Amino acid sequence: MKLSIIGLGRMGYNMAIRLLEDGHEVFVYNRTSEKSETLKEYGAKVIYDLKTIKNVLSTPRVVWSMLPAGDITEKNIEILSEILDEEDIIIDGANTNYKDDIKRFNTLKNKGINYIDAGVSGGVWGLKEGYCTMVGGDEKIFEYIEPIIKSLAPNNGYMYCGSTGAGHYVKMIHNGIEYGLMEAYAEGFELLKASKYGENLNLSDISKMWNNGSVIRSWLLELLEIAFKDDSSLKDIQGYVEDSGEARWTVNEAIDNGVSVPIISASLFKRFQSRQKDVFSDKVVAALRNQFGGHALYKKDRNIKKTSTGAGKVESANPDKRDFYGKNK
Amino acid sequence: MKLSIIGLGRMGYNMAIRLLEDGHEVFVYNRTSEKSETLKEYGAKVIYDLKTIKNVLSTPRVVWSMLPAGDITEKNIEILSEILDEEDIIIDGANTNYKDDIKRFNTLKNKGINYIDAGVSGGVWGLKEGYCTMVGGDEKIFEYIEPIIKSLAPNNGYMYCGSTGAGHYVKMIHNGIEYGLMEAYAEGFELLKASKYGENLNLSDISKMWNNGSVIRSWLLELLEIAFKDDSSLKDIQGYVEDSGEARWTVNEAIDNGVSVPIISASLFKRFQSRQKDVFSDKVVAALRNQFGGHALYKKDRNIKKTSTGAGKVESANPDKRDFYGKNK
Ligand SMILES: NC(=O)c1ccc[n+]([C@@H]2O[C@H](COP(=O)([O-])OP(=O)(O)OC[C@H]3O[C@@H](n4cnc5c(N)ncnc54)[C@H](OP(=O)(O)O)[C@@H]3O)[C@@H](O)[C@H]2O)c1
Ligand SMILES: NC(=O)c1ccc[n+]([C@@H]2O[C@H](COP(=O)([O-])OP(=O)(O)OC[C@H]3O[C@@H](n4cnc5c(N)ncnc54)[C@H](OP(=O)(O)O)[C@@H]3O)[C@@H](O)[C@H]2O)c1
Repeated sequence: MKLSIIGLGRMGYNMAIRLLEDGHEVFVYNRTSEKSETLKEYGAKVIYDLKTIKNVLSTPRVVWSMLPAGDITEKNIEILSEILDEEDIIIDGANTNYKDDIKRFNTLKNKGINYIDAGVSGGVWGLKEGYCTMVGGDEKIFEYIEPIIKSLAPNNGYMYCGSTGAGHYVKMIHNGIEYGLMEAYAEGFELLKASKYGENLNLSDISKMWNNGSVIRSWLLELLEIAFKDDSSLKDIQGYVEDSGEARWTVNEAIDNGVSVPIISASLFKRFQSRQKDVFSDKVVAALRNQFGGHALYKKDRNIKKTSTGAGKVESANPDKRDFYGKNK
Repeated sequence: MKLSIIGLGRMGYNMAIRLLEDGHEVFVYNRTSEKSETLKEYGAKVIYDLKTIKNVLSTPRVVWSMLPAGDITEKNIEILSEILDEEDIIIDGANTNYKDDIKRFNTLKNKGINYIDAGVSGGVWGLKEGYCTMVGGDEKIFEYIEPIIKSLAPNNGYMYCGSTGAGHYVKMIHNGIEYGLMEAYAEGFELLKASKYGENLNLSDISKMWNNGSVIRSWLLELLEIAFKDDSSLKDIQGYVEDSGEARWTVNEAIDNGVSVPIISASLFKRFQSRQKDVFSDKVVAALRNQFGGHALYKKDRNIKKTSTGAGKVESANPDKRDFYGKNK
């Protein structure tokens, strides 16, 4: 098919290549044009001004937006809606909130423009392995653009999930699950490393072994095999974890639907905490222990002497080993 | 190699077949003999009296115990230790606690008998896909029995993990991670089902799609594809989940090592709760809400009217919609 991709970031760039390699005619647009130029060697045609979309594509025109979700995507779709004609199709492949999809769908519908939401998974590996794609919107329109989705996805790796928003909803849940899975592995490896056997265990080898025949084998564990490869202790990586919003929405949805998600919410909250150097709630608990039990406090600049990798084995700063009740701690 | 397998349950039976098919000479023993008999057609030789092990195996004799962990395994190894000679080798493939391994290793060492601990993963699929096997104990003894482990495991699916207990320790962590992974998927699917898009989504199709190119693809998700196949609502399955002990040990280990495992511990505790019809802590919270806020209580036999699949959308039993503070709830 003829289509245009707007946004050639880590996702859009490789998606364009995958589509070109599968025979589609792809008109690429990016804010800055360097990436567009290098795509020429894959056969991409470059657009330097969004308005030209109207002339180069055939109707109904198909435009895939692959930009950061939120304001940037919103703005882009607004601009597109002024350029495009009735019957044309806008696909948003960003990690957009499904509620925004519904609003957008209605706004665009008023102009006669079709809107499809597509949740895309696969990250930087998608070029090679294919992008798992979850689609929402009008089923007829989905069928029209299905050849694009089919080229992006691996075999069986895409699905029409339902009315507008369904694609991004399923992608949101996917990401929520992802947070929990990552944290489960992470906790297991931390404990393994801290254990009496940890010193002699190569976590990359463990991952590799588990990936062959164990119950917990998975693609994430294959990535851990790589991540642990050079340095099992990950000493050059800070334990600081960003979140891109989808797990927040998952937890919000859980609240709205009265569904209990202890693991997903704890995984999200743990990421928040990972960004704090000194956690206020921990200060509060330390202060309280000191108040009622006379337990030692660690003063701000104190050098904590660790006796093991386990945080719980930190030595007390209190020279007096008896607690408030006179018992030895 | 020549070896004996004691215990032909879901694991031992198929393990014997895998070993026989790979050319080992396997002498099988089981408490009840029916399973031994059917193994004859795979080439197994049957032992009806443990004492005969001494005559049929060549030295150093290799005996694999595959029984329920705990007292049954303990007793079996005690019996074996009276039958076997110095230099002989006992392998325990049960989900034994690594602390028991260390005790046993020392007891057997006094008699000159070698002891190997082997954590085995793969469940009922192991016959076809191979058993991921984690081994602990004396490295020389491991090397001697390696041909057995190699036949049981798929390619790259086994590992010498370190001194006595290390095999079962790594298996324990594996199971702890497994609890977290299962719960993360479970929460995602529950929310998806309860959501506005849930009614029209086939969870088996979702699993299948996610297994092709998504970040959360895994073997567990392949099993979910099968589990959801016939009935996405799982209406014939009770939400009652047993645990086999390894996650308890994982959490105990986390405590002993001062390592925080919020996801693994929450997954374990959720299983405990799944077994209660009426949770006492929930009664306590309901009673307290009633005490301070005059909030309605659900009396024991009351029929709860649900307005959605989400548990949080249960209608209040209180005809008066105002709370203690006079505000509408
Ligand atoms: N990365 C992943 O693993 C992944 C996976 C699934 C879904 N997604 C979603 O896919 C979308 C794109 O992600 P990505 O990883 O490809 O992002 P990225 O690598 O950060 O690329 C961002 C793209 O947006 C453009 N852009 C940024 N700010 C802009 C602005 N103010 N105006 C116009 N263009 C702007 C950039 O242009 P320049 O080249 O000029 O900077 C670039 O083409 C996001 O919604 C993301 O959530 C990402
Ligand atoms: N199932 C799994 O997915 C899995 C995965 C990894 C590890 N494991 C571990 O592997 C071991 C075996 O598990 P399994 O699933 O094969 O168990 P299973 O199917 O319940 O089989 C139990 C075996 O132990 C025998 N047995 C039970 N009670 C006995 C007693 N009092 N005295 C002598 N023999 C007795 C049974 O003999 P009868 O045939 O006469 O009843 C049978 O051979 C366990 O330690 C388990 O934790 C299991």
